[in-house]
Amino acid sequence: MSLAGPLNGLLVLDLTRVLAGPYCTMVLADLGARVIKIETPGTGDDSRAYGPYINGKSAYFMSINRGKESLALDLKAPPDRAIFERLLERADILVENYRAGTMERLGYGFDTLHPRYPRLIYAACSGFGHTGPLHARPAYDMVVQGMGGVMSLTGHPGGPPTRVGTSIGDITAGLFTAIGVNAALYRRTLSGQGSKIDVGMLDCQLAILENALARHFATGEIPGPLGARHPTITPFQSFETRDGHIIIAAGNDALFQKLCAALDMANLATDPRFIGNQKRNQNVDALSQLMETRLKTGTTRAWLDILEPAGIPCGPINNVANVLAEPHVAARNMIVETKDPVAGSVHMAGNPIKLSDYADPHERAPAPELDANRAAILRELGL
Amino acid sequence: MSLAGPLNGLLVLDLTRVLAGPYCTMVLADLGARVIKIETPGTGDDSRAYGPYINGKSAYFMSINRGKESLALDLKAPPDRAIFERLLERADILVENYRAGTMERLGYGFDTLHPRYPRLIYAACSGFGHTGPLHARPAYDMVVQGMGGVMSLTGHPGGPPTRVGTSIGDITAGLFTAIGVNAALYRRTLSGQGSKIDVGMLDCQLAILENALARHFATGEIPGPLGARHPTITPFQSFETRDGHIIIAAGNDALFQKLCAALDMANLATDPRFIGNQKRNQNVDALSQLMETRLKTGTTRAWLDILEPAGIPCGPINNVANVLAEPHVAARNMIVETKDPVAGSVHMAGNPIKLSDYADPHERAPAPELDANRAAILRELGL
Repeated sequence: MSLAGPLNGLLVLDLTRVLAGPYCTMVLADLGARVIKIETPGTGDDSRAYGPYINGKSAYFMSINRGKESLALDLKAPPDRAIFERLLERADILVENYRAGTMERLGYGFDTLHPRYPRLIYAACSGFGHTGPLHARPAYDMVVQGMGGVMSLTGHPGGPPTRVGTSIGDITAGLFTAIGVNAALYRRTLSGQGSKIDVGMLDCQLAILENALARHFATGEIPGPLGARHPTITPFQSFETRDGHIIIAAGNDALFQKLCAALDMANLATDPRFIGNQKRNQNVDALSQLMETRLKTGTTRAWLDILEPAGIPCGPINNVANVLAEPHVAARNMIVETKDPVAGSVHMAGNPIKLSDYADPHERAPAPELDANRAAILRELGL
Repeated sequence: MSLAGPLNGLLVLDLTRVLAGPYCTMVLADLGARVIKIETPGTGDDSRAYGPYINGKSAYFMSINRGKESLALDLKAPPDRAIFERLLERADILVENYRAGTMERLGYGFDTLHPRYPRLIYAACSGFGHTGPLHARPAYDMVVQGMGGVMSLTGHPGGPPTRVGTSIGDITAGLFTAIGVNAALYRRTLSGQGSKIDVGMLDCQLAILENALARHFATGEIPGPLGARHPTITPFQSFETRDGHIIIAAGNDALFQKLCAALDMANLATDPRFIGNQKRNQNVDALSQLMETRLKTGTTRAWLDILEPAGIPCGPINNVANVLAEPHVAARNMIVETKDPVAGSVHMAGNPIKLSDYADPHERAPAPELDANRAAILRELGL
């Protein structure tokens, strides 16, 4: 049973593994599409083998594949190819994250499929995309985080290389692919024709560089890591408190004035070094030192209790357990639950796209066992 | 002139400022929508004041607002409200990133607009979403990076807090909003009805925690930062070389075998400590040390020349200038150009969603001056 959502009635054939592609099809499933995961017989999605496990089932796999069905097919074996082609006749969307050329070698490249299944939308989410000199090269998240520049901006000046702590190389590619699929779906309602979406993970890293790229093109500067502060907005950073840290992000002059008042540091507001964001940014070290000296006199909680009511954007640096304890997270249904027949009750992140026309149920369908839906799918196909 | 794309013919009224919302509407414009940026008279989008500037025009603003039109309206003034309402009659999509409640105070909340403009899709991209205890609170990127847990995973063990070097708090929210808008557009072709999309930046941070959340729920562990390695896949990290660093991501056993061969370290492949990802992950320090001792004997370039042909996912840690020098980036048209009447030739990141049915032009329309399109828009409305 698909979730109620705007993509109800649509069938996605999901040939993806690990994270970028499965994240895309999770988003599609969260929006109401029916997703059939086509997996390699025997092992299935690589991420089924990524620990930790709950009763032998990968927590990671479960969290990215909830609500999908599974069918194991060997796309090199004629009987399984026949099943796959029957599914293609009914499918609206195919998503794959193989290396460029793999689908062509299987005889299922877009140029072959499009004439046979003209309404099929074909989405490829690969490391480097389907064109360009690196198209055939394999990539994982960390490779594109390194090549794409985001690691050069993350960490502390002079410090060792630092990975973004979540796989944004994969996730941004999954999100851009989902956008492309949805736009192509809209277009298909007008044109009657499916199309191909080609997303490369490295390209997506370029697409998220935002002001680092703008600064480089404007000044020739090569931006480096800045620890825990914003490169061009001040104050917009982490500060030490008596018992930890606090984030304060005063993104404009009005907020800076309010902040000075709330900190009881009216002198800062009129200090010529700190008038206007440009001056504050030039004198970030002096300003940080003055603010931090003051902030160290109280605890994070005490400062939040002063700054929040004053309307200053601020917050703690939460670890995962702290985040989950925020009542807001539960109120937004951002942790959902599956009742897995193998692993029992399993919790995972919910869908951040809240839609006025659809419920956002707390309980979701679990991730499938490998090949769990074979019998039902074959029956549906009359096989 | 809108760009040719799947969203051709659609009109977006864009009430957003700074990054999350403007990033969403940039993606919509890149897909062919016409985007009219409704800005505050006098100052316009806050980010017009973010340096550095090229001939007085913000490079940052230009990079996120290319191809949009600008109309300055005071939504509290009756004559401007009349113009806005005429635009609402023609609009397909409204995107705003105000704090929850702001649009309601203006009389333009979804509940008011929907009965009057039933086909209008209303997308809100706010710090905390439109429900829940924190809904009215302001947020900027760094606040949600801190609150949402990603900063607790980024950086080095025992080291100071570390921000992700790009504004993923804003960008992921912009991407999820764009997905919601597109899915709602598809639905509207069937239902005839617009709907509301409510995306909170904090929610999006939860949605990208992936394995940190899975590990926490499976084991109770509170994941911390891991420097430059993946938490559960080994080897999947940065290593020192003779002249810098290299990323190597051998995500499965077959790749690990190939890697050992390419490094001429056959002994690693048969070492019982390193058989299977789980063992390698438990013994990550020992494995890293052995590999790094070997990798330090050569330069990054020399190792890439050995590992790339062997099919090992690997890469350099590029700074922004290095990324731009990758021939692949140009081949994928990931840097596009606008010919800005004020700033001249300005370069910026391109669109990573490559579509088979549409060209991906290198030259894009520039970002507008504040209120630049007033006369043409009023003429169009017959005003």
